[in-house]
Amino acid sequence: MVKISKGTIAYELAKGQRDISIAEFFSRNRHLLGFDNPKKALLTTIKEAVDNSLDACEEADILPEIEIQAIDMGDDRFKVVIEDNGPGIVKKQVPKIFAKLLYGSKFFKLSQSRGQQGIGISASVMYGQLTTGRPAKIISKISKNDPAHYYELVIDTKKNKPDIIKDEVVEWDKNRGTRVEIDLEATYRRGKRSVDAYLKYTAVVNPHATIIYTSPNAEQIIFPRVTDKLPEKPQEIKPHPHGVELGRLIKMLNITKCRTIQSFLKGEFSSVGAGTAKKICENAALRPSRTTSRLSREQAEKLLKGIKKTKIISPPTNCISPIGEKLLKKGLKKEINAEFYCTVTRSPSVYRGNPFLVEVGIAYGGDQRADSKATLMRYANRVPLLYQKGACSITKAARETNWRSYGLSQSSGSLPKAPATILVHIASVWVPFTSESKEAVAHYPEIIKEVTLALQEAGRKLKKYVKRKKKVKAEIKKRDFIKKYIPHIGGALKELNNLDEVKEREVEKLLEEILKQDRGKLKKLGILDNPEYDEEFAKIGRKKDASAKKDK
Amino acid sequence: MVKISKGTIAYELAKGQRDISIAEFFSRNRHLLGFDNPKKALLTTIKEAVDNSLDACEEADILPEIEIQAIDMGDDRFKVVIEDNGPGIVKKQVPKIFAKLLYGSKFFKLSQSRGQQGIGISASVMYGQLTTGRPAKIISKISKNDPAHYYELVIDTKKNKPDIIKDEVVEWDKNRGTRVEIDLEATYRRGKRSVDAYLKYTAVVNPHATIIYTSPNAEQIIFPRVTDKLPEKPQEIKPHPHGVELGRLIKMLNITKCRTIQSFLKGEFSSVGAGTAKKICENAALRPSRTTSRLSREQAEKLLKGIKKTKIISPPTNCISPIGEKLLKKGLKKEINAEFYCTVTRSPSVYRGNPFLVEVGIAYGGDQRADSKATLMRYANRVPLLYQKGACSITKAARETNWRSYGLSQSSGSLPKAPATILVHIASVWVPFTSESKEAVAHYPEIIKEVTLALQEAGRKLKKYVKRKKKVKAEIKKRDFIKKYIPHIGGALKELNNLDEVKEREVEKLLEEILKQDRGKLKKLGILDNPEYDEEFAKIGRKKDASAKKDK
Repeated sequence: MVKISKGTIAYELAKGQRDISIAEFFSRNRHLLGFDNPKKALLTTIKEAVDNSLDACEEADILPEIEIQAIDMGDDRFKVVIEDNGPGIVKKQVPKIFAKLLYGSKFFKLSQSRGQQGIGISASVMYGQLTTGRPAKIISKISKNDPAHYYELVIDTKKNKPDIIKDEVVEWDKNRGTRVEIDLEATYRRGKRSVDAYLKYTAVVNPHATIIYTSPNAEQIIFPRVTDKLPEKPQEIKPHPHGVELGRLIKMLNITKCRTIQSFLKGEFSSVGAGTAKKICENAALRPSRTTSRLSREQAEKLLKGIKKTKIISPPTNCISPIGEKLLKKGLKKEINAEFYCTVTRSPSVYRGNPFLVEVGIAYGGDQRADSKATLMRYANRVPLLYQKGACSITKAARETNWRSYGLSQSSGSLPKAPATILVHIASVWVPFTSESKEAVAHYPEIIKEVTLALQEAGRKLKKYVKRKKKVKAEIKKRDFIKKYIPHIGGALKELNNLDEVKEREVEKLLEEILKQDRGKLKKLGILDNPEYDEEFAKIGRKKDASAKKDK
Repeated sequence: MVKISKGTIAYELAKGQRDISIAEFFSRNRHLLGFDNPKKALLTTIKEAVDNSLDACEEADILPEIEIQAIDMGDDRFKVVIEDNGPGIVKKQVPKIFAKLLYGSKFFKLSQSRGQQGIGISASVMYGQLTTGRPAKIISKISKNDPAHYYELVIDTKKNKPDIIKDEVVEWDKNRGTRVEIDLEATYRRGKRSVDAYLKYTAVVNPHATIIYTSPNAEQIIFPRVTDKLPEKPQEIKPHPHGVELGRLIKMLNITKCRTIQSFLKGEFSSVGAGTAKKICENAALRPSRTTSRLSREQAEKLLKGIKKTKIISPPTNCISPIGEKLLKKGLKKEINAEFYCTVTRSPSVYRGNPFLVEVGIAYGGDQRADSKATLMRYANRVPLLYQKGACSITKAARETNWRSYGLSQSSGSLPKAPATILVHIASVWVPFTSESKEAVAHYPEIIKEVTLALQEAGRKLKKYVKRKKKVKAEIKKRDFIKKYIPHIGGALKELNNLDEVKEREVEKLLEEILKQDRGKLKKLGILDNPEYDEEFAKIGRKKDASAKKDK
């Protein structure tokens, strides 16, 4: 036994040291989860529930139909109800899914989904309980033949465990689905970062979903689906060897059921066939048939070096489900009244072993204001990001793109000043957010690079339009200019040829027709855009002016 | 028993649903903890260890002496060693403190400290283990008479529990202290957000600490302490009633040992005496002698409304330990070569029931560049914040302050363009950071307001200096201007009075003397700054010029 001097300061300090429950941690750090203020709390609660509903429907191949109600109860209290037609949740999972932080299925899968942490909806329940003292009320039903289960739940924050207040079977006139009801302290305001904006933005990139929203002002807004086709279902993948670090590799080696290094590489990673596995072993100077169980730390390090040295094909891309250029354009057209639309879907790329893909859409001109900066719409896995613009790598890439070379005006380090909306969507099996509230994408260089390339690609498409528009504008200006001279030419011809007034009008009309019909042809003939002619015109004009003055 | 249709989709989905360990969560979301990239990883690891050492020393009333070594092992590997003269850690706590996330004592105390989450140092250990596969090595000793314990530790990420590799008693030539050694993947670069900058910035606001740093280039930099006085020890406080929400109030009522509402209010909160407690009960329409144990949710809500209605004095301020205007100025002077320094320490304020205090220092002029934006140094609880500038409420307040009214040039929404350094320090019992990596302060309106007021107060002090400087500049210009005329006056006087050249020089010298000695007096006499006189001077000047030309 080691002796401890009980009188030392260290012993005093040790008295206070103990476990911190994750629920206590987040209840104090609620702003990390998107509950900084009452306005945002309303948005976050609805967002977490809607994201879950959309994920569940898509996983179960169901076209989503989601009803959202936000009811103003007065006194800064709101009741939020979200009901879906999803697959429902099996009874015993309901309490944990809604009243335990860090619980779920999406964290463990490398596949694209809106939720990924197992925190969001439980955090909303916790916030509601903290601010109103009321439990969340859940109904879920998994099939026509199963009963609907009703729960009233709070979180035991000290233990991060569900506390079940009520557990009943109820009647519910639905075949399947889930209904969540949360009371919370909140405020409602319209505008850029409101619930209304979130749902509108959501509708743009989820054209397969019907969303029915009753606002706190008791207005009903319906976003009907515009396609009956569900998005391509993203497939789950294994990690790519190039994204694996030593610690993880050692852990994987410890728990694998594969006996040899070669079978381990082939079986536990994506993009590794027998040939590649052999090549890795060669580069690592390890026998492919060596058993995995006896590998030391040093040997694992050699294996990792071998992996790094070996060229390995990119991860499969069916784990990512992009919106697609066509649907993205459709979505933009639905919401933004512009003159020109262009969209770009890049091919997938990889950061830290995680496949991801960037899509960009630009809507230009039309109703949009020309005297202010372009609007940037940010999305990650089909979820709009409304807060923390400044911290997001999408914003960084958009600001640092040289929009001047695409014909837009821009002060350096800012979004372009143009009548435009720029939409950026990042889809990935794991989106690296800057905080648990999932409002901004972290600054991974690979991601910033891909977003930049996508913006540039869209920018080049836009440039053609902007250039053409500028040309047309210049042409119109020129035409107006020439038009100004027509009466003078008419007058001059009249003077020279002694025409009467009727003939003069006729000549003028003829000249106008020629101008309107085919300035191009005239140009080809060298009649227009020739400075000599312009000078001639000018002279005639002056003559006319002078004679007109004389007449008076 | 409720029947479950095993064939439903919900049942399939349920198979994947399970607990997520907080260590797994953060190992995948390591950027939340400040491990986004190898450069930052080096900084974060050293920062977490140094913050802990400073906290421990101050808690134990020890003047800190901290040695930091960062050794480049090649191949992007670094060994980091941090050794302090602190109180040490009792044996059985060592594994949990260094190899379990969310473990510690500071989370539960409402008192100002650098650490507050019980995550930082364990996260560093985890990052080291993930990237190098190596355990952290710890030595700790709590007194001369106790043995030094040596541990080699890794985190079992699946369980978030320490995995003890080695546990030995060793010889250590120190009376007490702690030594941490972590191997990690990292890169080292100098510059704005380097380890070097962090330590320099730390030295500015911790004048009582001696820091000895050996950089990866094997240079030794010593920041000696400039005061032997430890900062005032911040006291632990109870929560203030105005920061308590319903959920927390109910929980407090459930676990309190106080029998009546009145004693509960008096005993569990700060700033509540018998009178205030009575007043609250009155405003809540509850009997003060009512027992706490039988309060319903509705009654707790009434109690909260009563609390909100009652005027309660601000929380005690001895829970916060500011640097102070004098020491802050000293710190600034030590590091920045400027012409003018001013500092402001505001009185404490409250956000969500948590007392906090803002200090501002400005260093103006001197070596600093006039053609670029001012440098902003952000601090929270004496820890420099080097990353995520854009997400921080300090930055927001500094950008939105109208610096033009203090004589600096500024484009709207930017830091002023001036040869200046602006230092802002927020001290609080609980700093609301925007992420676990503690790099930016969340946008609480109360905090932004206090920072703004502090900046304005410092701005007004600065204004006086800037104005005086401008005046002096203008004065010098004017003097130079007048000086130009002196020879002409001399010449004119010579002409008028037929003086010889010697006399002319004498007159000129006399005039210069008068100008130098006392332009103020002349001004008072109405001789200078009178446009008529200026015109007269100009005329004489012209005359002189003309005659000079004639002479040629």
